Amino acid sequence: MTANVYQYDVIVIGAGHAGTEAAAAAARLGAKTALLTTNLDTVGQMSCNPAIGGVAKGQIVREVDALGGLMGEAIDATGIQFRMLNRRKGPAMHSPRAQADKRAYQSHIKMRIETQDNLDLRQETVEDLLTENVDGRDRVVGVQVRGDAQYRAAAVVLTTGTFLQAIMHTGKAQTAGGRGGEGTTSGISGALARLGFEVDRFKTGTPPRLNARTIDYAKLEEQPGDDQPQAFSFLTDKIVGQQIPCHITYTNEAVHDLIRANLDRAPMYSGQISTRGPRYCPSIEDKVVRFADKSQHQLFLEPEGHQTQEVYVNGISTSLPRDVQDEMFKRIAGLENASIMRYGYAVEYDFCPPTQLWPHLESKSVDGLFFAGQINGTTGYEEAAGQGLIAGANAAMVVAGKPTWVPSRDQAYIGVLVDDLVTAGTDEPYRMFTSRAEYRLLLRQDNCDRRLTPDADRLGLITAQRRDRFASKLAEIEQANTILKAARIQNTPGDVYLKRPEIDWATMCGLVPELTKVDSSAAEQVVYDVKYEGYISRQKMEVEKQHRLAGKRIPTSFDYGKISALRNEAREKLSKIRPLSLDQAKRISGITPADIALVMAHLDH
Amino acid sequence: MTANVYQYDVIVIGAGHAGTEAAAAAARLGAKTALLTTNLDTVGQMSCNPAIGGVAKGQIVREVDALGGLMGEAIDATGIQFRMLNRRKGPAMHSPRAQADKRAYQSHIKMRIETQDNLDLRQETVEDLLTENVDGRDRVVGVQVRGDAQYRAAAVVLTTGTFLQAIMHTGKAQTAGGRGGEGTTSGISGALARLGFEVDRFKTGTPPRLNARTIDYAKLEEQPGDDQPQAFSFLTDKIVGQQIPCHITYTNEAVHDLIRANLDRAPMYSGQISTRGPRYCPSIEDKVVRFADKSQHQLFLEPEGHQTQEVYVNGISTSLPRDVQDEMFKRIAGLENASIMRYGYAVEYDFCPPTQLWPHLESKSVDGLFFAGQINGTTGYEEAAGQGLIAGANAAMVVAGKPTWVPSRDQAYIGVLVDDLVTAGTDEPYRMFTSRAEYRLLLRQDNCDRRLTPDADRLGLITAQRRDRFASKLAEIEQANTILKAARIQNTPGDVYLKRPEIDWATMCGLVPELTKVDSSAAEQVVYDVKYEGYISRQKMEVEKQHRLAGKRIPTSFDYGKISALRNEAREKLSKIRPLSLDQAKRISGITPADIALVMAHLDH
Repeated sequence: MTANVYQYDVIVIGAGHAGTEAAAAAARLGAKTALLTTNLDTVGQMSCNPAIGGVAKGQIVREVDALGGLMGEAIDATGIQFRMLNRRKGPAMHSPRAQADKRAYQSHIKMRIETQDNLDLRQETVEDLLTENVDGRDRVVGVQVRGDAQYRAAAVVLTTGTFLQAIMHTGKAQTAGGRGGEGTTSGISGALARLGFEVDRFKTGTPPRLNARTIDYAKLEEQPGDDQPQAFSFLTDKIVGQQIPCHITYTNEAVHDLIRANLDRAPMYSGQISTRGPRYCPSIEDKVVRFADKSQHQLFLEPEGHQTQEVYVNGISTSLPRDVQDEMFKRIAGLENASIMRYGYAVEYDFCPPTQLWPHLESKSVDGLFFAGQINGTTGYEEAAGQGLIAGANAAMVVAGKPTWVPSRDQAYIGVLVDDLVTAGTDEPYRMFTSRAEYRLLLRQDNCDRRLTPDADRLGLITAQRRDRFASKLAEIEQANTILKAARIQNTPGDVYLKRPEIDWATMCGLVPELTKVDSSAAEQVVYDVKYEGYISRQKMEVEKQHRLAGKRIPTSFDYGKISALRNEAREKLSKIRPLSLDQAKRISGITPADIALVMAHLDH
Repeated sequence: MTANVYQYDVIVIGAGHAGTEAAAAAARLGAKTALLTTNLDTVGQMSCNPAIGGVAKGQIVREVDALGGLMGEAIDATGIQFRMLNRRKGPAMHSPRAQADKRAYQSHIKMRIETQDNLDLRQETVEDLLTENVDGRDRVVGVQVRGDAQYRAAAVVLTTGTFLQAIMHTGKAQTAGGRGGEGTTSGISGALARLGFEVDRFKTGTPPRLNARTIDYAKLEEQPGDDQPQAFSFLTDKIVGQQIPCHITYTNEAVHDLIRANLDRAPMYSGQISTRGPRYCPSIEDKVVRFADKSQHQLFLEPEGHQTQEVYVNGISTSLPRDVQDEMFKRIAGLENASIMRYGYAVEYDFCPPTQLWPHLESKSVDGLFFAGQINGTTGYEEAAGQGLIAGANAAMVVAGKPTWVPSRDQAYIGVLVDDLVTAGTDEPYRMFTSRAEYRLLLRQDNCDRRLTPDADRLGLITAQRRDRFASKLAEIEQANTILKAARIQNTPGDVYLKRPEIDWATMCGLVPELTKVDSSAAEQVVYDVKYEGYISRQKMEVEKQHRLAGKRIPTSFDYGKISALRNEAREKLSKIRPLSLDQAKRISGITPADIALVMAHLDH
């Protein structure tokens, strides 16, 4: 008999970027939520680089924020260097990125979790998933934790990161563990196998950390942040924390020679690791092999905070043996005498191919079991946070008997993310890029609130403060549009005059003084609405067309076996993915227009 | 072949309170030092309560500071509530104590380590101790770490805390691990066994942590800190951090009834744990059994920092099962709805009885191997820090071929601590008390610098800043004494007048205005010197007498077997402890004045 049983609505396992957003979202929706983690001191930990955002990722952070999530406010409060990337390109490419004070970020997230109503954060090690079989279907009913206790709930969200069956590699040395100094999580792997989940394996890596005291900064290029740092959160008025620079140096032929001479000792090349890593975040040994003609690679030195000397060396992720890591730095300008505090390593871990999930991230085979973050084969804090929010919110809604909600591909990068995952799966750690979004002109970092906050409000995900702030901004935009349309400049209406490429908002304000009182974030929306009206309306027409196809819903119980004319490959794939609409079906790799026509014909019956 | 070998003078294993002081002290003395820890994120971690100091312990912190250590400055920079305990008693009992912001404290210590010259902090897991046997004697030559690398040095300091063969208990549930969420260290235990070290086992415990959001503070007694917080470090001018209160509540008969009804489920009473814990820091189940007549016990709620809601409940350490822990709080005023974030547990761990060490904390059987902290059977951050500093400094001095140094019992609580440990050992986790010091009138918190800084300066342990500051203070004291002695009040010299019980320094300043310019810390010394002159000179005479006995050195190779008249018990004990002086021999338990007389007679031969 188990003496200790705790009853919740939603249980979230793991308190990283996915788990904290999942738990907070479920709790915001009123679900009684437990967030369980093996170590309370690592809640919200940045296990790899101390930075948030970047191209396409910064947009996701702003989307998470527009949905009431934690990440945006956390980085605003603890960022030590803010930059808007791609400022010279069009607004669809503008991407916010910031360096974080790693410990401060973690404390901020933990404090948010601790102060969230309906949410209990507890240090527990989950040993097993508890399920029942009702009428032939498995459903989750809770988890067993170390120490003879059970947490019971109708929904469980799994966010185990790289901790499933993890093995770390540095040279020939192998160690069980999901990251430096921490253990691995084996009970959950066993449960997933028992429940029949398909499990695959990925690898990722991390670079060495150096002691700033031992770096010769005089030899490095300084990279300061923006003069006027822009916040991630729609709730932040101003970034107030002290800002510090990053630094840049480069590898060289001497480093590349060293790596080439030691390739047989690299786990990636010696055959010790055979799993796939993130193609767009390669190890230095990968770069040297794949880009053999390049004579140097940039290294970006990121300070890990105000209160530490640890420096993350972005660009030199490696699992080469220590003596090679030591020697590499001796050959790099400014790092000749650098002292390594943590050696780089690669880590292999289990993930569950996400085609086993519905778009709202619930398992197709085990009711009530949700997956978010690296367990779905993704990489990146932002991708994890976005999924976490979707999984946690839907877990709460499913438990409450409400309909699920997922943003569409034309509404959010998060929509692209979950649709890509559940429709196509991934054969390498999945990272977001602007190129993955067919409607990226719509999915800008500046308009995340206009895209998502109304839905978030309807679902109950946001506070009154956010609702009011957003309403004020909409009113401001409307007022600006009214002024603009009423103004006449050289006999031209103001909104038409603003379309001219050489005319910017500051010029307009000079011509129509009333516009100076418009808030800058509202003005930005007005300018983009006017200037990109043509492009935007074309993308919106395309979206409408897709929505008509998306409107063709396919029942989850639809029997593809009855379409005798369907090719075997199409039947297998459709039966596995079970798309919810013809639009989703169309995106499954290998599905042809002819297949779609056949399915459509049978749907109309 | 091991590809990676790192050469150092001193290696310190473990980066808790003992390890960080040891490494910093060795590096300050110029030894090339490596500090190795399994997880860089837990350097300087407060694994139990978030507080520094207390009765006798606060004195140790000030002694560590006077010797150039880290602890005093760290708590001054990160304390959130300072109190001078026993203010109404005589100055020998005044003891500083402070609550710490746990994360900030840890970051401060880590930063100090990271910025210390001659010191490399590295994330490494030690798998084995490397030794050589030269001319029949074992000596340490380094350590083997996970990942195919060796660190080599002539001295190794072991500060493994509670991580040797650790087992955690909550009710019947047992888990390998030294504290919540972290692992255990097994390779070192094997090495100690192989080297023939005697190993014994202790237990300790920790209380549950609660979420402040769920505590009803209106029902609690508030305990504010001092209006004018006094610093620990002789280098700190003023405490500037924001101060917050602690809170008090009490257990009651309903709680005690619950515990009594569940005693058979307490590992301490069910027979599951048979090792000894700290008698003066008992679990709540111990208190209920041992003090059966008490109807309540005080609980002290300590906030863990500004940026967290975690609250440490001092006074309710327990390894009872979770359902009992849950139910206990439901019965306590203010905690009825408290949510437990981490459950309490007991932990059993290996230690090495410290009678196997010389007073400077080097092993008697393995040259170059030093021990400090809980591995010596002590409890408490302060006791660990004091030993760490002694072990680290002596490791550096031994490597440099210099004579060792240990403060005497009349010079420092740290002297009492190491002498007690190596002379008498300990049959329960050793904690410092003022009652352990026979010269406690000399060992006050206010005069640690006068007692220790001159020796520290001579050894090279302190900075020029500290030396200059101390010299100024001495000059100030001398000047004040000159003024005082020259002054005449009612025909009485000032220093004689000040002896009167009703006369304090403020009164003296009114009578002799020149005294107002004397710095308050110098004035304090002058007052105590004058007012306690009688007591102090009596203790000093006693010390002189002891020093004459202590002057009778016994060679470490002395053969007690040749004293045929010696009782067998005395011969065995003396041969085991190998006291360095007749004074130390006298303190060995069971050694009689007659035994001492016999040894003295043979020494004189």
